[in-house]
Amino acid sequence: MNITLEQALQAIKAALEKSSEMNVKMNIAVMDSGANLVAFAKMDDAWIGSIDIAQKKAKTARYFNMNTGEIGKLSQPGQPLYNIEHSNNGLISFPGGVLIKDPSGNIIGSIGVSGSSVEDDHEVALAGAAAVI
Amino acid sequence: MNITLEQALQAIKAALEKSSEMNVKMNIAVMDSGANLVAFAKMDDAWIGSIDIAQKKAKTARYFNMNTGEIGKLSQPGQPLYNIEHSNNGLISFPGGVLIKDPSGNIIGSIGVSGSSVEDDHEVALAGAAAVI
Amino acid sequence: MNITLEQALQAIKAALEKSSEMNVKMNIAVMDSGANLVAFAKMDDAWIGSIDIAQKKAKTARYFNMNTGEIGKLSQPGQPLYNIEHSNNGLISFPGGVLIKDPSGNIIGSIGVSGSSVEDDHEVALAGAAAVI
Amino acid sequence: MNITLEQALQAIKAALEKSSEMNVKMNIAVMDSGANLVAFAKMDDAWIGSIDIAQKKAKTARYFNMNTGEIGKLSQPGQPLYNIEHSNNGLISFPGGVLIKDPSGNIIGSIGVSGSSVEDDHEVALAGAAAVI
Repeated sequence: MNITLEQALQAIKAALEKSSEMNVKMNIAVMDSGANLVAFAKMDDAWIGSIDIAQKKAKTARYFNMNTGEIGKLSQPGQPLYNIEHSNNGLISFPGGVLIKDPSGNIIGSIGVSGSSVEDDHEVALAGAAAVI
Repeated sequence: MNITLEQALQAIKAALEKSSEMNVKMNIAVMDSGANLVAFAKMDDAWIGSIDIAQKKAKTARYFNMNTGEIGKLSQPGQPLYNIEHSNNGLISFPGGVLIKDPSGNIIGSIGVSGSSVEDDHEVALAGAAAVI
Repeated sequence: MNITLEQALQAIKAALEKSSEMNVKMNIAVMDSGANLVAFAKMDDAWIGSIDIAQKKAKTARYFNMNTGEIGKLSQPGQPLYNIEHSNNGLISFPGGVLIKDPSGNIIGSIGVSGSSVEDDHEVALAGAAAVI
Repeated sequence: MNITLEQALQAIKAALEKSSEMNVKMNIAVMDSGANLVAFAKMDDAWIGSIDIAQKKAKTARYFNMNTGEIGKLSQPGQPLYNIEHSNNGLISFPGGVLIKDPSGNIIGSIGVSGSSVEDDHEVALAGAAAVI
């Protein structure tokens, strides 16, 4: 089960629309179930540093099959996965990376969004993921 | 002078159409004048290894303001830029990376294409660059 | 003193059996006394991100001759080894990496396990290490 | 379509038997269709430097869906893909990496072997791939 380019572009389009609506400037990355990049878009004047973060969020979500924010709760000082971010050539463990599933619930990819507050990033990522049908 | 997301998506769209017409499966990356990724698309079943190569081609073209194939001529054994590919965390110096210019001739970005022969890659890249107006 | 492939495969086998028994999906890496990979197994549907973590746990245990969880206690904010994870191209300092010793107590290698809670990871690693005789 | 651990271990076992028969000491890596490591074995006294090469061969074969030796013909000085090895954090383009297919011809993974001459490496890789049914 793997996301198609058509589906990935649907996710990007929905995430761009949500971002415009929220008046934020985002970087948006969609990966397939093998954590390989399928589609990407950087809105005009979005943070350059978020190009990499958006991709690392998508990768992180798929690598552990959970939203990135969940990993971040576990990677705090004193928590079980402290400093897990050092693995896999760098992870991002704050919100903005979510899984993309098909209607049967199979994981077919992931989306990572970066460019605003982590709450905004997460909201835009959810909008992108929800657009894949 | 910098390419907009709208222009980058025009380049991606034109490159995808050209690829379909040529019956090849491409990875297509568009970068801005700062060599930062603006848009990317991986066609279904395109080579996984070309995700990185498409981006490195776009980067290489802009880093030296020439088509990637031109650099490849100079990087052969005995030539002036022998093994320049070791710099900048890896360059790709065979065809498929071309500059994107505005109507006045200003460089506003670059496009890198990978997934078929280098001749095909270059042809699709040219089609993508030409679509930006 | 160095673990043999035969011994490493014994460790992998025991760790796989323990994982099945516990109903968890693990990545298991065994390294020799030089911290070089000897054997590895990824159970079906185990986290992709744990491929690297299992190896980094095995490496970390052998690099400092202690279970990874012990290092994690020392690498917390304010502790003596704060952020030691930045060294050696990335360490993992939470439980799941343990040393493998021969019957005389000589260190002959290490095992790293990743794919579930750190307690589960550690338990499976112990089972793997104990199988080496 | 993805190789299972059981299938990967079949490939490793067959490659180990072939290596013993040929009296060579090999490192053997099996990856899935997403180019993620599934199983690995290093024979006693096999070259340490081949641990990485075996994995890079498996990755390279899957990244471009061809045997690694084919890429090596194209990456020589003056050839179309000169210095492609600089992409993807390092490729290996000499023989010893081959695809693993299911009975219907679908690519389900790849195997990389390193430790002897490239002819030997390729022969052992073929034996490993052929054992997957």
